Amino acid sequence: MAEKNDKKITPRSEDFAAWYNEIIARAELADYSPVRGCIVFRPDGFAIWEHLRDELDRRIKKTGARNAYFPVFIPLSFLQKEAQHVEGFAPEVAVVTHGGGKELEEKLVVRPTSETIINHMFAQWIHSHRDLPLMVNQWCNVVRWEMRTRPFLRTAEFLWQEGHTAHATREEAEQETLTMLEVYRSFVEDFLAVPLIYGRKSAAERFPGADDTYTIESLMPDGRALQCGTSHYLGQNFAKAFEIRFLDDNNQLQFPHQTSWGVSTRLLGAIIMSHGDDQGLRLPPAVASTQIVIVPIWRKPEEAEKVLPVARELREKLENAGLRARLDDRDGVTPGFKFNDWEMRGVPLRIEIGPRDIAANEVVTARRDIPGKEGKGKASLSDIATHVRTLLDEIQKNLYRQARAAMEANTHQLASYDALKSRMAGEGGGGFVDLYWCGNPACETKIREETRATCRAIPLNQSVASGPCVVCGSESKERAYFAKAY
Amino acid sequence: MAEKNDKKITPRSEDFAAWYNEIIARAELADYSPVRGCIVFRPDGFAIWEHLRDELDRRIKKTGARNAYFPVFIPLSFLQKEAQHVEGFAPEVAVVTHGGGKELEEKLVVRPTSETIINHMFAQWIHSHRDLPLMVNQWCNVVRWEMRTRPFLRTAEFLWQEGHTAHATREEAEQETLTMLEVYRSFVEDFLAVPLIYGRKSAAERFPGADDTYTIESLMPDGRALQCGTSHYLGQNFAKAFEIRFLDDNNQLQFPHQTSWGVSTRLLGAIIMSHGDDQGLRLPPAVASTQIVIVPIWRKPEEAEKVLPVARELREKLENAGLRARLDDRDGVTPGFKFNDWEMRGVPLRIEIGPRDIAANEVVTARRDIPGKEGKGKASLSDIATHVRTLLDEIQKNLYRQARAAMEANTHQLASYDALKSRMAGEGGGGFVDLYWCGNPACETKIREETRATCRAIPLNQSVASGPCVVCGSESKERAYFAKAY
Repeated sequence: MAEKNDKKITPRSEDFAAWYNEIIARAELADYSPVRGCIVFRPDGFAIWEHLRDELDRRIKKTGARNAYFPVFIPLSFLQKEAQHVEGFAPEVAVVTHGGGKELEEKLVVRPTSETIINHMFAQWIHSHRDLPLMVNQWCNVVRWEMRTRPFLRTAEFLWQEGHTAHATREEAEQETLTMLEVYRSFVEDFLAVPLIYGRKSAAERFPGADDTYTIESLMPDGRALQCGTSHYLGQNFAKAFEIRFLDDNNQLQFPHQTSWGVSTRLLGAIIMSHGDDQGLRLPPAVASTQIVIVPIWRKPEEAEKVLPVARELREKLENAGLRARLDDRDGVTPGFKFNDWEMRGVPLRIEIGPRDIAANEVVTARRDIPGKEGKGKASLSDIATHVRTLLDEIQKNLYRQARAAMEANTHQLASYDALKSRMAGEGGGGFVDLYWCGNPACETKIREETRATCRAIPLNQSVASGPCVVCGSESKERAYFAKAY
Repeated sequence: MAEKNDKKITPRSEDFAAWYNEIIARAELADYSPVRGCIVFRPDGFAIWEHLRDELDRRIKKTGARNAYFPVFIPLSFLQKEAQHVEGFAPEVAVVTHGGGKELEEKLVVRPTSETIINHMFAQWIHSHRDLPLMVNQWCNVVRWEMRTRPFLRTAEFLWQEGHTAHATREEAEQETLTMLEVYRSFVEDFLAVPLIYGRKSAAERFPGADDTYTIESLMPDGRALQCGTSHYLGQNFAKAFEIRFLDDNNQLQFPHQTSWGVSTRLLGAIIMSHGDDQGLRLPPAVASTQIVIVPIWRKPEEAEKVLPVARELREKLENAGLRARLDDRDGVTPGFKFNDWEMRGVPLRIEIGPRDIAANEVVTARRDIPGKEGKGKASLSDIATHVRTLLDEIQKNLYRQARAAMEANTHQLASYDALKSRMAGEGGGGFVDLYWCGNPACETKIREETRATCRAIPLNQSVASGPCVVCGSESKERAYFAKAY
């Protein structure tokens, strides 16, 4: 272990994909499993997911949705009830054909998403307008057969939450779709410190079965976009397919209007890529299991006897203040080794404490987000918890600022198709391009086929003057973000 | 809904199984799904699981285990590596044969439990005694094909946590097995208010692949035992099957000693059956989503205008004190209807507040655990939160006391096989019988075949004199609990 982590990490600029995989292996976030496409979430990786999940769960519940749990298996026939839905998901499902030693009469699909089974249940529960809105959410595993695995970003099994709601009116359902988009946006930007663009998807990029899909998208340092969450307005498509009807207040039978929305363990990939550097992981304090690591410094055993009790007391003081602190009292490895190890694992703040610091009633702080001497400071032991909390807040904000600056530096307003082509063919992966697009799928297809960039989002409520589509030149009312995507 | 819930619940004494199913349906805890053997956890049922899970998760983490997540799919060949394990689980697995539109080269099993896949990974992670102990836990869904479904008690898919640990020595692993048994015992008794007996399982009742299984068992009001959690000492069986080896401090290769332990959504069944009565559910305050329901009382609209603001203020006051309170301000249903509805849903404490109460600066409290006038009291609005907290503590303890008394009343020390036979054939479902058993599997088989009672637990550290086995009469050093079981 010690040896392994002494090896230098491949620099991001040299091979971003190799850097990403090395970080995940060396920070022990995940491991490959013997099952094709499936990864193992190791404790240090899963702990990030737990912090993220608990906070998002609180925010989702605040909107009025309640958690429930629906079966992992879905009858194959259910998937087939909504035409676009089956077309989108049938090619990538895992199918259970045998159970309890017998061949099943009807094949079961391992859920790739749960619209079908949930709406089947909604049909039993919704009878009157008094049963609406019905808003449920579930945290679960889903399976979409994938041949190429990239830990967190693309795996056959992943973990996510999926919200499903039914409303009496179109307006209310559309509002819910946008409410959840905003819940996701603020959560990802504030809590994960990952900057975003957001908006509507093009028809080609919509969720299979939705009337409209909204998305939050972040830009990775390799210039490719990562879809971080989606919120769908499903219209009455699933209500019709599953015969969900309610009596409105005029005693007329109506189909409800529906939404679904989700984010997944892919967000771990966004955190790693947005913030990591050539020394390793950099975790935003809000999601870091260990926010502060305390490294005691000593040369002689009698110094250790003085330093360790103070270091332990310090850890307790920080923990009592609600901070997540850890003391690295390992014997047999040098402080320098510990510094590198915790930097690699992304701990936001390091506290060094030695005999001289104790004599001066102070400690040395070192910020993970500012390398070298500039990130170092002194702090009095007397008001250490307050000081540390302020530093963690600054680190959280600074990680966001840095990532935001990187995204903006690689976002380009383009006015011509040639500029788009040369940008996507050039260095830097292309980044976000912001351009006029007429909305015609033919122009979108041409862009995708010739540059590999896809429409990531069409910003909402645009107040721009119209302009010429970069492909066909026809008058376009909206601008759109395109990028190559994960 | 209103009409449905006006119908009387089948009394427990008349048909316990019907009572159980009605409670689950009417309190909206779960619903049947179109997938054989799988249920839907509705929000009111899932919320109990969430409270339970969060608290148990804290207690598990305190022991040093950390959460992780392993794939839902397990290669069929893995299951076959441990002889007893495959024999136990192969007949009840669901098998995935197709993925991504193609037949798989190797069939995958949907995990019935994760010893095999987790120990495969442990073999990659454990090399030295410095890697031990390794303690992971995961919360996930598992599937065991079942033909007869009883919500929460026996379902094809269920939710659980499974802990898996590896240790350098036998002593340490055995200690871990017992530590987790005690974590489960205190959690189920203190938090769920469900009384238990506990001890070692007989060889016939052991987990397939374990050297020893320990169990906590509760007694349901119909006289049948419910296994509430198990903790297994796995010896080196899985370590050998999956070639997990470590260098000990003498530089010798050794197999680690292992444990696994789990509890499941079956605990929801234990809560419902242990505490429910003929009026409906009774939830222990610790796991109740709504601990207090506030029912405002008024006749004329101008009274409502006075009462509702005070009721809202009261709810806030209780919530600010960390209590889970709900205001039932529904219009169009009577207070009497609300009383019945919340009693049926098991809310531990009701607060009634009307114009006269407000004039006197007090409220009426009504305990769910004590029916009628005896459970009613007055409380001053001035120190209401403190008072309510005390009441909730008392309710929690009283539910435990009542269930403990019921268990003890149906636990019988027996000295003869005839007494055992007539008890198991008689009224009351048999209950727990406490008897001398020689430990011979032949005697156990005879009991099971002739009375349907199985060995539930052999208490630990017995200091009883030896006595004659109730079946064969030979000298027995230990007493054991037998019962018919769910």
